[in-house]
Amino acid sequence: MASRMILLFTDFGWNGPYVGQMKAAIAEIAPGVPVIDLMHDAPAFRPDLAAHLLAALVARAPAGAIIVAVVDPGVGTARPAVIVEVDGRRLVGPDNGLFAVAAAQAGAVGVERITWRPAALSASFHGRDLFAPVAAHLAAGTPRATAPAGLTAADPAPRDRVVYIDGFGNAMTGIPADALAPEARIGTGGDTATIGPARTFGAVPAGTPFWYRNSLDLVEIAVNRGDAARDLALTLNAQVWIA
Amino acid sequence: MASRMILLFTDFGWNGPYVGQMKAAIAEIAPGVPVIDLMHDAPAFRPDLAAHLLAALVARAPAGAIIVAVVDPGVGTARPAVIVEVDGRRLVGPDNGLFAVAAAQAGAVGVERITWRPAALSASFHGRDLFAPVAAHLAAGTPRATAPAGLTAADPAPRDRVVYIDGFGNAMTGIPADALAPEARIGTGGDTATIGPARTFGAVPAGTPFWYRNSLDLVEIAVNRGDAARDLALTLNAQVWIA
Amino acid sequence: MASRMILLFTDFGWNGPYVGQMKAAIAEIAPGVPVIDLMHDAPAFRPDLAAHLLAALVARAPAGAIIVAVVDPGVGTARPAVIVEVDGRRLVGPDNGLFAVAAAQAGAVGVERITWRPAALSASFHGRDLFAPVAAHLAAGTPRATAPAGLTAADPAPRDRVVYIDGFGNAMTGIPADALAPEARIGTGGDTATIGPARTFGAVPAGTPFWYRNSLDLVEIAVNRGDAARDLALTLNAQVWIA
Repeated sequence: MASRMILLFTDFGWNGPYVGQMKAAIAEIAPGVPVIDLMHDAPAFRPDLAAHLLAALVARAPAGAIIVAVVDPGVGTARPAVIVEVDGRRLVGPDNGLFAVAAAQAGAVGVERITWRPAALSASFHGRDLFAPVAAHLAAGTPRATAPAGLTAADPAPRDRVVYIDGFGNAMTGIPADALAPEARIGTGGDTATIGPARTFGAVPAGTPFWYRNSLDLVEIAVNRGDAARDLALTLNAQVWIA
Repeated sequence: MASRMILLFTDFGWNGPYVGQMKAAIAEIAPGVPVIDLMHDAPAFRPDLAAHLLAALVARAPAGAIIVAVVDPGVGTARPAVIVEVDGRRLVGPDNGLFAVAAAQAGAVGVERITWRPAALSASFHGRDLFAPVAAHLAAGTPRATAPAGLTAADPAPRDRVVYIDGFGNAMTGIPADALAPEARIGTGGDTATIGPARTFGAVPAGTPFWYRNSLDLVEIAVNRGDAARDLALTLNAQVWIA
Repeated sequence: MASRMILLFTDFGWNGPYVGQMKAAIAEIAPGVPVIDLMHDAPAFRPDLAAHLLAALVARAPAGAIIVAVVDPGVGTARPAVIVEVDGRRLVGPDNGLFAVAAAQAGAVGVERITWRPAALSASFHGRDLFAPVAAHLAAGTPRATAPAGLTAADPAPRDRVVYIDGFGNAMTGIPADALAPEARIGTGGDTATIGPARTFGAVPAGTPFWYRNSLDLVEIAVNRGDAARDLALTLNAQVWIA
């Protein structure tokens, strides 16, 4: 059974009145619909990296969910706004490459360009003025005007990159864990030392780096009770290689 | 049509059990009412600065919304607790200047002093014990006791100040964008160089400071792909001037 | 009357897709139930310290509330998963000492081991895959399989420790305020100087350290308009003593 909920995925951070105003806009249009913060620290200004993270989250989102996704350095410019339907979930946001990975991995994809515009559209906050209302109207069953379209050809980053570093310093890559042999070793940067797999944190001694299939089924580099990003000098977009 | 929702505006930050306990208190009294975090990093201990930010947010809040606003360095002292009705929205919080700008800019204002007290009132957390329940009872249609009153005369900060710095270093002032000519230049600190307007981030080269009409219709100073607060040495309450 | 709500208490932090995925899992199973973030910065990897904080929060939670509590360094190992009923609230999480204080202070305690397992259980994210669904099914009235059990004997930290430091540097201890004489003085570290009580922040001059009965009825050390943790060199798990 399809669930009715709106998930938010942005690079806005938790500070400021940005996320809250998006939610107020949604609640005004679709008051009974649950709105859930999926994350607000997606790679800032990097739709090419965020695309990998978003795709993994979309694949696990409840059927029927509507996801408002905003990593949008081009806000206020001419880039189109779109609704992308992938395997029964609908994504609402800018057409700037952010949806490229989710669309590529989906079995069924439909793309509509959002032609509706609100009475007042700020130059810098389409999350509140355009994407949130469009998602809320979808959830409320009163969709705004769209026109058939395709996604533009913005390429995502290669998947062998660090696409997210969490608050503990764990470094998530865009590589699906299924793409690696269970015993594979991976390398980072100029290091000749490689790191091996483990099932989870408790399976290696404190301080030991390892990679594991994370809860999104992506390859993630971690250090038990440590900070992998710091210890291994990993930054967003750093390349990793399979040994 | 009036929306039924409660918005939270505080300086509590996201850490700790503070916001969560306010929400639990509301959910116990008014379980079906959406509760939305408008922001929790309002200028800490500075109702005089937060007043400008709150007023801009209130002006855009859905009609019928109830806003619990807590920037309350005097919690536990004798400052009154009030409900302020401005243009169909109701604000609940301390009478310490926090509502001064919203009230001044509103067409219709009503003020009630909250005379009800809960069975147990902690000395340090009126947000949970007093303001949240009062707002929830308003939303539930079972208002607690009040008495007609006026706002005390606490003055807000002058509007030509930085009233908020967001997570990206953008510096919001209390100046309504309508108060400036579109081509006006503004200055900060002792700098003789002034900065000009732009429509949005993408309209200037990376690294360039500019001011723009932000999504709350206030003058905001930013640097495309940069950190205006750091680059221009702007801090909360810094004065800006119109060149 | 018992309230129906799910409260979340974790050490996940606000960053990343962790809390959001827990909420999506709950909304899928129990869409009408309010889900509230009680806090997500519980002492990381320290169930022995978090146990004190959780107990104080549980004692104040609305009757009927379900609390998902996850501070779980042993995720993926053999530690059991439990539902603990204390005075009409139900706690769901790992059996690793996290519930020891809440259970010890409750008048009535029931413990069930969770024997149900989801179709897919990740090694590192039982919050999303196990605890959130179990809590949601409890709330929805479709409980998953359990077996009678007891809590294992993991001891919490002694209560005379700093169990939480909030964003302002206030240091909460595990000592119930009722255990101290109102005029008691307390000491920290090797200092011979002790600090006295105050009712709240506004009752002492700016910069003065004091202890007070905080809003959870625990002894908390603070500095008016200052940062007690920094000024008094207090860290998580630091010992305090009653003079």
